[in-house]
Amino acid sequence: MLRNMSKKIPGRIRKEDIAGMIDHTILGPTATKANIKKICEEAKRFNFCSVCVNPAHVKFVKNELAGTNIKVCTVIGFPLGATTPKEKAEDTKLAIQDGADEIDMVMNIGAMIEGDYDTIRKEVSAVVKAGHGRIVKVILETAYLNDGQKRVACRIAKECKASFVKTSTGFGPHGATVHDIKLMRDIVGMKLGVKASGGIHTLKNARKMIRAGADRIGASSLVKEFYGISIQDQTLQKNILKRKVY
Amino acid sequence: MLRNMSKKIPGRIRKEDIAGMIDHTILGPTATKANIKKICEEAKRFNFCSVCVNPAHVKFVKNELAGTNIKVCTVIGFPLGATTPKEKAEDTKLAIQDGADEIDMVMNIGAMIEGDYDTIRKEVSAVVKAGHGRIVKVILETAYLNDGQKRVACRIAKECKASFVKTSTGFGPHGATVHDIKLMRDIVGMKLGVKASGGIHTLKNARKMIRAGADRIGASSLVKEFYGISIQDQTLQKNILKRKVY
Repeated sequence: MLRNMSKKIPGRIRKEDIAGMIDHTILGPTATKANIKKICEEAKRFNFCSVCVNPAHVKFVKNELAGTNIKVCTVIGFPLGATTPKEKAEDTKLAIQDGADEIDMVMNIGAMIEGDYDTIRKEVSAVVKAGHGRIVKVILETAYLNDGQKRVACRIAKECKASFVKTSTGFGPHGATVHDIKLMRDIVGMKLGVKASGGIHTLKNARKMIRAGADRIGASSLVKEFYGISIQDQTLQKNILKRKVY
Repeated sequence: MLRNMSKKIPGRIRKEDIAGMIDHTILGPTATKANIKKICEEAKRFNFCSVCVNPAHVKFVKNELAGTNIKVCTVIGFPLGATTPKEKAEDTKLAIQDGADEIDMVMNIGAMIEGDYDTIRKEVSAVVKAGHGRIVKVILETAYLNDGQKRVACRIAKECKASFVKTSTGFGPHGATVHDIKLMRDIVGMKLGVKASGGIHTLKNARKMIRAGADRIGASSLVKEFYGISIQDQTLQKNILKRKVY
């Protein structure tokens, strides 16, 4: 695992290593099968870690990725986090039936804000249990939390045997920051993963996140750098990225 | 029922009549019990039709509204609509177990865009079945659709025995428009309801929607006009509406 790379790899982090950490993501409400097929093709072409889609598309992606090592990642309670522990667990079971390998669940943000930690414990435990050993990532949606709340969230995720903590849904006020990644890695230590997501559009930004402690990157438009397109080249980008992505 | 009021009530639509059509709504991810309690108190004070919350809060709202005629409304597949028909049906069942009286489901928008009407039929039928006679509203998220798609969506909702069509989640690019309400009422006729939601902040706007054909209004900040606060009075508004609302 490429964790805490800042200490292990003082030099440049290779593009190929970053590829292996990318959850190639398409979660917008307007995504069609054609859009998702393209994401799967890109994941195969560039050896990304997983394809992350809404539950409606899990079955389709499972089929598209058959015969590869690329994982199918999906989202639960997404993006608001305001469903019940029971609903999150049931939805996890259904997603697994459809072929999901990894589960990114949004924490109940309101419960965290009001200090109702029991609800958070209950929902994380329920999803981990429903996940039957699969990777479960707990999305904090850090943009709504203060540092104390982020720390509590990380401790609960660890205590309840989640595999990762993750910064953002991509639908909140802002995405991953270096500050948050450092804080999260500091709390979860080396036993859990830390996924940086939301607003990571460049390899430069991805490298910053990895050096801060991230070992998974959730991204949708980072793929353009793998095609070899600079972020300045808007026209080419538009041709390649003819889809609504988040 | 106050349907197609434009033909029946040429004069001013009274505030009290509008109150009876309002789904008083709080769907933001940061909502706490305290915020939701306030919404329930406002619904009781002003005789609103329902309180609309995320599934995590249904049980709490059911309890808060006990002994009143105010309905508990919740949302399914919200706000992206990209879960499976099975998941939407299961989530509906769980919400009903918690006390939900009305179900606002988001249509699979990607499926509508790619012309996969079977999926839409399947999911609406599944939720209506799981609803066991309760009101089911189908959210089209009109901002993503062209007029042809909106018409098809309305026809499918009617065919699959939904009770209402609804314009928006409040999380999309824009909310209800007079154009969309007219179009939707035109297709569903008098047998279904039409709910205008998203961006309705004033009684003036609510009246426009009702005259266009709406008989339900989803709103969060419309309550300020019931308190007697003009939309210009920002300071008072802030004191009363100390919550994140959508």
